[in-house]
Amino acid sequence: MKVYRFDQAGSLDHLTLHDEPTPEPQRGEVLIRVRASSLNYRDIAMVHGTYLRAQQAGLIPLSDAAGEIAAVGEDVVDFKVGDRVINTFHARWYGGNPPVTLGSQSYGSHRDGWLAEYKVVSEEAIVAAPPHLTFEEAATLPCAALTAWTSLSGLRPLRPGQTVLTQGSGGVSVFAVQLARLLGARVIATTSSPEKAARLKALGADEVINYVETPAWGDRVRELTDGRGVDRVLEVGGAGTLEQSIKAVANRGEVALIGFLASSQSNLDFNDLFRSGGVFYRISVGDRSGLLDLVRAVTLSGLKPVIDSVFPFERALDAWHHFDDRAFFGKVVISH
Amino acid sequence: MKVYRFDQAGSLDHLTLHDEPTPEPQRGEVLIRVRASSLNYRDIAMVHGTYLRAQQAGLIPLSDAAGEIAAVGEDVVDFKVGDRVINTFHARWYGGNPPVTLGSQSYGSHRDGWLAEYKVVSEEAIVAAPPHLTFEEAATLPCAALTAWTSLSGLRPLRPGQTVLTQGSGGVSVFAVQLARLLGARVIATTSSPEKAARLKALGADEVINYVETPAWGDRVRELTDGRGVDRVLEVGGAGTLEQSIKAVANRGEVALIGFLASSQSNLDFNDLFRSGGVFYRISVGDRSGLLDLVRAVTLSGLKPVIDSVFPFERALDAWHHFDDRAFFGKVVISH
Amino acid sequence: MKVYRFDQAGSLDHLTLHDEPTPEPQRGEVLIRVRASSLNYRDIAMVHGTYLRAQQAGLIPLSDAAGEIAAVGEDVVDFKVGDRVINTFHARWYGGNPPVTLGSQSYGSHRDGWLAEYKVVSEEAIVAAPPHLTFEEAATLPCAALTAWTSLSGLRPLRPGQTVLTQGSGGVSVFAVQLARLLGARVIATTSSPEKAARLKALGADEVINYVETPAWGDRVRELTDGRGVDRVLEVGGAGTLEQSIKAVANRGEVALIGFLASSQSNLDFNDLFRSGGVFYRISVGDRSGLLDLVRAVTLSGLKPVIDSVFPFERALDAWHHFDDRAFFGKVVISH
Amino acid sequence: MKVYRFDQAGSLDHLTLHDEPTPEPQRGEVLIRVRASSLNYRDIAMVHGTYLRAQQAGLIPLSDAAGEIAAVGEDVVDFKVGDRVINTFHARWYGGNPPVTLGSQSYGSHRDGWLAEYKVVSEEAIVAAPPHLTFEEAATLPCAALTAWTSLSGLRPLRPGQTVLTQGSGGVSVFAVQLARLLGARVIATTSSPEKAARLKALGADEVINYVETPAWGDRVRELTDGRGVDRVLEVGGAGTLEQSIKAVANRGEVALIGFLASSQSNLDFNDLFRSGGVFYRISVGDRSGLLDLVRAVTLSGLKPVIDSVFPFERALDAWHHFDDRAFFGKVVISH
Repeated sequence: MKVYRFDQAGSLDHLTLHDEPTPEPQRGEVLIRVRASSLNYRDIAMVHGTYLRAQQAGLIPLSDAAGEIAAVGEDVVDFKVGDRVINTFHARWYGGNPPVTLGSQSYGSHRDGWLAEYKVVSEEAIVAAPPHLTFEEAATLPCAALTAWTSLSGLRPLRPGQTVLTQGSGGVSVFAVQLARLLGARVIATTSSPEKAARLKALGADEVINYVETPAWGDRVRELTDGRGVDRVLEVGGAGTLEQSIKAVANRGEVALIGFLASSQSNLDFNDLFRSGGVFYRISVGDRSGLLDLVRAVTLSGLKPVIDSVFPFERALDAWHHFDDRAFFGKVVISH
Repeated sequence: MKVYRFDQAGSLDHLTLHDEPTPEPQRGEVLIRVRASSLNYRDIAMVHGTYLRAQQAGLIPLSDAAGEIAAVGEDVVDFKVGDRVINTFHARWYGGNPPVTLGSQSYGSHRDGWLAEYKVVSEEAIVAAPPHLTFEEAATLPCAALTAWTSLSGLRPLRPGQTVLTQGSGGVSVFAVQLARLLGARVIATTSSPEKAARLKALGADEVINYVETPAWGDRVRELTDGRGVDRVLEVGGAGTLEQSIKAVANRGEVALIGFLASSQSNLDFNDLFRSGGVFYRISVGDRSGLLDLVRAVTLSGLKPVIDSVFPFERALDAWHHFDDRAFFGKVVISH
Repeated sequence: MKVYRFDQAGSLDHLTLHDEPTPEPQRGEVLIRVRASSLNYRDIAMVHGTYLRAQQAGLIPLSDAAGEIAAVGEDVVDFKVGDRVINTFHARWYGGNPPVTLGSQSYGSHRDGWLAEYKVVSEEAIVAAPPHLTFEEAATLPCAALTAWTSLSGLRPLRPGQTVLTQGSGGVSVFAVQLARLLGARVIATTSSPEKAARLKALGADEVINYVETPAWGDRVRELTDGRGVDRVLEVGGAGTLEQSIKAVANRGEVALIGFLASSQSNLDFNDLFRSGGVFYRISVGDRSGLLDLVRAVTLSGLKPVIDSVFPFERALDAWHHFDDRAFFGKVVISH
Repeated sequence: MKVYRFDQAGSLDHLTLHDEPTPEPQRGEVLIRVRASSLNYRDIAMVHGTYLRAQQAGLIPLSDAAGEIAAVGEDVVDFKVGDRVINTFHARWYGGNPPVTLGSQSYGSHRDGWLAEYKVVSEEAIVAAPPHLTFEEAATLPCAALTAWTSLSGLRPLRPGQTVLTQGSGGVSVFAVQLARLLGARVIATTSSPEKAARLKALGADEVINYVETPAWGDRVRELTDGRGVDRVLEVGGAGTLEQSIKAVANRGEVALIGFLASSQSNLDFNDLFRSGGVFYRISVGDRSGLLDLVRAVTLSGLKPVIDSVFPFERALDAWHHFDDRAFFGKVVISH
């Protein structure tokens, strides 16, 4: 089978194609014919060395995929050959408390990922794909959509009538707009251009703020909420945008910390954070139980992921270059 | 001011009009010019003697109203003259654990209710009405809509992608259809006629089962959910329908016990209940914090309550007779 | 290796010793040298045919064990040879929503259990044993202790100052007394003899009611709680005792349905259940995340399980006979 | 009646005694003969101008008191003359979402507080005092004990077997040590002297770290928890200590932000906060429902508040001076 590996860490030049034996499933495992994978910010940040966890040389990249079961090992009960599936981002976080190994077994950074023709994993590490989605669409769910879902679920689930703030038009933020509308919440989005603003509104954003024109958008958000602030922020920008998010959040509203954009500025003012009354915590994508819930919601609603572009397997490198330009809207996908 | 009182308990013949002095607000209280009130099942059950709590002779009936602030007492901070408000069903359950007095201070059964031109209550016992609703529409929220909202909030909030079962077309059930759709859930409703089925579908029910034609509708619900069962049941029928609801509920799904219809049959089989894996508990309408959340959701979504009929204040007795016929769809309202 | 199997279902006469090849761990699996196992009510109910799930002929019985890792398969990261471990009751319920296969993969009823010298399972199906416990003590935790822990955790965790009701002196109930005291709750226990009452008090019960002398013990519980009722009931008796439990539970208190004792009477009165205001739901032991939490609590507190008796592996049948007499206090254990 | 007022803000010199008419309760209100009050950090911070909310000239200070009902207004149902009560810190936060007026109606800063012989409040603004406590002891509960209770309850209640970190020996921290032990948690405390360390251990702290000798105590906490970190931090020091708390907290552990000590340093590093995986949020004392729960726990356990010193009403000013020296352990109380 064909697989891509980063032969060395730290440069896109080292992503090369290899021919390797197709693995075989052992007890409780399945062999998946991978049909599509998708990129996330971590996949480019690892190359640039700005990700929390350093990339290791020699690994197959990418954490998200969709495919079909090609073979099953002994005692597999939940899946059969031909089933359409997607993987879980954390192969061993099923629900409840995360395992202590959560940060040391990630696809692409610590173990082989999904940019391959075939892959063997435990049957616990996959779930059924929504029937109405193509493989390309389904491959966008494991990281970006689940991160949005987990953030909206939060420590206390967002309820109809509440307000959520999204930032920009990356994969997580676009899913957040779609999912927040699905659950009856009001959406305020930030963006940098009238074109993107129009697309966000078409997807369901009630209000869009151009953060180039309105750099103090935190104050604007407060105006739009009658001084109350928003109930949830999906904070993807890191320290650079958090200053405004702190101004935007309601007392006891939650700020889901997702992003970690490298920035010369990483200082926060404790007093601002304290006075806001917000609840601040990091989102680590989510667990398998959450992915099952998300798949049900996507299936019932017929929600379609927003795909920016699809690259063929043989031009996988181009997907990285496109992603690196930061000019996309939604998800960048590779078709295997 | 004019008020209605049940001069004796136990018969509609004893509901008569009285002329009484208009009360004055003390510290922390408001005087409300009541503009509309609405009936709930308890209001007729009390007359028939089948309500859990016996009606007391001499009381003003009705637990739900909308009106405008006519005067405010000393130290009132949240409301001013002219504000449009609705009352809370439990005057002193604000949030958290219910007060021990919850069952002994109810409007209409233990203290004077709202079928009056004016009423004085604490400012803690009201909330602002949704701006887009008429007084008649707003008066439907305190009991029926909040009961539906509380049931959907449940011990764990219903999530997008989950399925809810509603029964019939009374006030609570119709609100449940509307609210469940608002939060991205699938709705299966039961009803007795094709006409009502069509109306329930128009309001958002995904599936409607005619329980006359399909008395074993619990099995049908299970089929419609691929054997899984529903995540929530709003059980308004009491022991008579619970047998089917037990068949319809998913493992760890919640059955919100709302109704208490008198029935010759009140026996349950413990083994059925145990094996279902459901969570069974009574809903006592809800607290003030929940009503505030509901008002936000109704306001943001523009949801319009379904009103069956409106009777003028001077013909209030006709509202009871109409309600007693059980032929309504949605809420029966009195305009003051 | 030596294993016991029920060669036919339905009689203790069919439990016989076999000599079989020792299995080998595959990828992600561990081989465990089983050192102790324990009996639960289901193990005798299956023989008598009164368990919810019928026993299958040919299976190795018992769901609970402790032992040490004898070998590890490829890619095992959490355990190494020599580690002392206990198993999870549900091999594949890790946290979050239970898998749909929950009821069809149970040890002893649907798949081979633990009454064997060796056993291979996934590394996800075990957790580290508390260091201060012997194998015999540790083997009591997977079902009985976790059931008590899950019941006290409930839909809302029991808090210090609240009151819990336990019934009798079986494994779950004795653990419930110990764990409830550990978390600062008050315990009211029922029992049938002054000797057991004294032992329950020594373990931490604040009040003990003799249900033989006081058959209407539900009323007595209400007196002991100033009319308020208890916040939690661990209902192990089924329909026979539930009638009293319904009288004993506080408004919004939780009744954890654990037991399913066969009884000629299985009828409940809906009105009693409705009026109680209690929350009724079945406990299915619990998930792996809960077992990890329980182990932490047991380890920190130094809690010691109460062992009624220990039988050697070669006399395993005697453990069943002893259990069947219903004269035990705490857990019945087999030493391998 | 005699009352103290700050005739001007900003100096202890302006706290003077006044003679004023005793107020009378209106409908739903009670007149309380105040018997004891207690000081909190906010009471001295307001004088120094470092509190979040500026003190207003002319107000009676202090937010916490205990006393007995001297008279009841019309329609009061929960209390009668002679009942021993304590007040709620937030007079109108009963449970559920906090009212929007939460920050603008506080005793001592926005409305008259409790340093008086008599006070009239709504019956909703008090709860029964634990019977085993003196008035001086009971007066310590409304702010300090409830803040500790709310922090331990958190977004997810602290469970037996988990670990909590407390800082120093002020009122909140000492209650946290006592309450954490009560609920079966492990306590790691920081302090500045061997004497205080000994007292904290006697109250139940499992480990005490001298932060003078070990300024990098965050690392030490991590060692003491086998690298895992603590499940809860009661952060009373503000930005100055938060740096260490961030190092001490476990992934998904909660950091309850209580303190706001003025500090030249108020900068945080976003990356530290993000990488910690902690949940950070401000505690605003707590609501009435929580105070009722706390009173139950204190009553059942017989917990006795730790009182540093008691000053007579006529020497109230000395209490402020003593508090200002920061040399106390536990609570500073005034006896009326």
